Amino acid sequence: MPFMPPTDSMFLLAESREHPMHVGGLQLFVPPEGSGPDFAREIVAAMRQSDDVSPLFRRHPKAPVGSLGNTWWATDDVVDFDYHVRHSAVPRPGRIRELLHLTSRWHGSLLDRHRPLWECHVVEGLEDGRIAVYSKIHHSMVDGVAAIKLMQRALSEDPEARDCLPPWLLPQRERTESGTRSLDPWGMVRSGADVVGELAGLVPAGLKIAQQVVRDNDITLPRAPKTILNGPVGGARRFAAQSWSIDRIQQVAKSSATTLNDVVLAMVSGALRAYLLEQNALPDEPMSAMVPISLALRGDSAGREGGNQVGAIVVNLATDRENGSTRLEEISYSSKQAKKIMGDMTPTQILALSAIQMAPLAMTPVPGYVRYARPPFNVIVSNVPGPKEEMYFNGARLDGMYPVSIVTDGQALNITLTSRKGFLDVGLIGCRRSVPHLQRLLQHLEDALAELEKSWG
Amino acid sequence: MPFMPPTDSMFLLAESREHPMHVGGLQLFVPPEGSGPDFAREIVAAMRQSDDVSPLFRRHPKAPVGSLGNTWWATDDVVDFDYHVRHSAVPRPGRIRELLHLTSRWHGSLLDRHRPLWECHVVEGLEDGRIAVYSKIHHSMVDGVAAIKLMQRALSEDPEARDCLPPWLLPQRERTESGTRSLDPWGMVRSGADVVGELAGLVPAGLKIAQQVVRDNDITLPRAPKTILNGPVGGARRFAAQSWSIDRIQQVAKSSATTLNDVVLAMVSGALRAYLLEQNALPDEPMSAMVPISLALRGDSAGREGGNQVGAIVVNLATDRENGSTRLEEISYSSKQAKKIMGDMTPTQILALSAIQMAPLAMTPVPGYVRYARPPFNVIVSNVPGPKEEMYFNGARLDGMYPVSIVTDGQALNITLTSRKGFLDVGLIGCRRSVPHLQRLLQHLEDALAELEKSWG
Repeated sequence: MPFMPPTDSMFLLAESREHPMHVGGLQLFVPPEGSGPDFAREIVAAMRQSDDVSPLFRRHPKAPVGSLGNTWWATDDVVDFDYHVRHSAVPRPGRIRELLHLTSRWHGSLLDRHRPLWECHVVEGLEDGRIAVYSKIHHSMVDGVAAIKLMQRALSEDPEARDCLPPWLLPQRERTESGTRSLDPWGMVRSGADVVGELAGLVPAGLKIAQQVVRDNDITLPRAPKTILNGPVGGARRFAAQSWSIDRIQQVAKSSATTLNDVVLAMVSGALRAYLLEQNALPDEPMSAMVPISLALRGDSAGREGGNQVGAIVVNLATDRENGSTRLEEISYSSKQAKKIMGDMTPTQILALSAIQMAPLAMTPVPGYVRYARPPFNVIVSNVPGPKEEMYFNGARLDGMYPVSIVTDGQALNITLTSRKGFLDVGLIGCRRSVPHLQRLLQHLEDALAELEKSWG
Repeated sequence: MPFMPPTDSMFLLAESREHPMHVGGLQLFVPPEGSGPDFAREIVAAMRQSDDVSPLFRRHPKAPVGSLGNTWWATDDVVDFDYHVRHSAVPRPGRIRELLHLTSRWHGSLLDRHRPLWECHVVEGLEDGRIAVYSKIHHSMVDGVAAIKLMQRALSEDPEARDCLPPWLLPQRERTESGTRSLDPWGMVRSGADVVGELAGLVPAGLKIAQQVVRDNDITLPRAPKTILNGPVGGARRFAAQSWSIDRIQQVAKSSATTLNDVVLAMVSGALRAYLLEQNALPDEPMSAMVPISLALRGDSAGREGGNQVGAIVVNLATDRENGSTRLEEISYSSKQAKKIMGDMTPTQILALSAIQMAPLAMTPVPGYVRYARPPFNVIVSNVPGPKEEMYFNGARLDGMYPVSIVTDGQALNITLTSRKGFLDVGLIGCRRSVPHLQRLLQHLEDALAELEKSWG
């Protein structure tokens, strides 16, 4: 019976009925030519066909984890497929709106800890004939980036392939090694805990390194105004999702000599500004976003290879500026500066700095912390690379893949996006109470892009 | 801000992610002539139409109740109808089976304590064109019997009436007075706590009264063998439901000179016997059922009026007997004896005895209790009176009304039934893990009735 390392169990301990710690994904598929009205049902049947479930998807906590202390993973021999793989339907008229309502409900309910910590819904009833698949898996099992990668591994580039297996039937790969750490922010809290532990003991050592980096590089550690996005959260969620053409965003980036990520952040900035103005809740100070990034790095003194390193930067969103182009400019500058500083650091230093920046996330389960502390940043914006080609699952073409991430006390809104051929798929998850009318952010994102296109299209 | 009495908050305290303490109901309706495919949607719109929500349905705990201690009710001014009243659909082929799967999922998830503790799903997509309504409400707000009555109050005998209001828009009635205590078993745990409190203080006083009653009446306090139905439960549920013609059951009762309730218990007995034989888990000793009953009683020395009093009897189910008629005979005898004893008791004595019999239910949250203690009875069978006439909701005819009750550690199966014109509607709720293939009990119930009909039909 494998011992569950504290870096896993922290996600179980931190979870309460108000803070489910699972990550999810909502995929859309266009069924292959000639498939009938029972296509979703056939997919469900195919997904339940084999008993050869990979160990990861048979694992659950040995005992309910309710307090501090060690726990163990138990691995079930048999998986109750009727429970884990669910056939669902959207009600009439079967628009994306109804699908998003269902996704919001599913993502707001807790996984049963007596069973392997995952669920998959195959959804029919969309008016345009597409099929949706909503999956969720607990963060103690895989982080958000790994979850999205697992979903991708189930797909094939071949539209004729009919032997695609769902993620739980795929042969298991090893966990991400520390050389290629995950882009997932919660994974970084975990990695930070690992590294800080490796170095000296606990947080003080990390703090010391970070302070050194800050002094040497003359960094002003990011600050963020308190907003309605940074208070305690309730148990219910609201999810919204939409796709944008990568060409549109690339065009703005090219004309304005910025990056795709800068333009995405400028869309987020414009959208948040418009949304908070509507709510009469825009802070005077500029808001900031935490953005996980991947960097090519030099080795460090401990002989650790550079390779691809992952860190977190906090970018000024310039939400105090009225003009979209000005916001893009400031975002690009802030982002460049943060990356430059990280480029001069060793992987260990980066991890330590990232861990310090994210330490407040780890503090959120402490009662009262969020109510009084200033947030370390206002929103998390993650961009997870996706497939570059058209992908298929047993002939059904992938037509959307929206990450559904985690919100916690202090971070009531999370924006995660992923790419696929030609499109950026954006998933917004928020606390249903602290982020009212979350879906309006979709229109504001579009408006912000359209404004940038006027100057840079 | 009203203080929440401990008899309410115990249901919040006792609740964990494994033991949701809400009660529910699944109703089926035949839409009126001429209604179109958007009938369910129209019902949802009508249910969300008024903001005049009764205070009960705007109430939630002031702070999440996580430990012993007092708490308060808060009453929201505005209810987020999009959250509480949900439009849902069963997937193809839209049989009752798919509806029961959905109900199982809904009943297994916890209510959000930041919001008024209720939800209502209006479900379309059944192949026969019927509409289903699944409602759930937390037991700290109303008990199971009151919940079923609330659902009934929304209905009209007039098929032409189009002004029916859903339960949350109905004017609120006062809580059940102690003179007409509820038939709900969990309500009785509550009532018992009340009465025992009134009398002397805590459990010892109740125990003393009960011991006296037992001595005076020479009662053998019921015992029950430990079965697979009496262990710890997980978080997932399975729900099954079916209707039986009251005429069939009455015919057996009449011919065998027993009561309708005796025949129902004989059906339960035969079904449990067949089910446990299949599972290779039938105990040698006879199993027993706890049955809430309503009695007309004499007054007591404290000047309390008799009126309709409610108590709990434990009936021998005679599951060790092979012959259905023999089981019915023993059940009838056991039931008569228990009622006779209660008939000689004062209301206070009945409540005290009932409370003692049910005290183990109140003990279930104590860690380890269920694993080692002998169960006080093997299963709870409640019969809640329903409407005697055909009932309608805005023209849609009620065609089924299945209670969805609570399971807890030690009581992994609950059977609750209610009547309507011509039918008994039976709802079986069980822990998905401890009660595998729960739906098979439906066939076994039918087989048990058919066997009795051979002798007494």
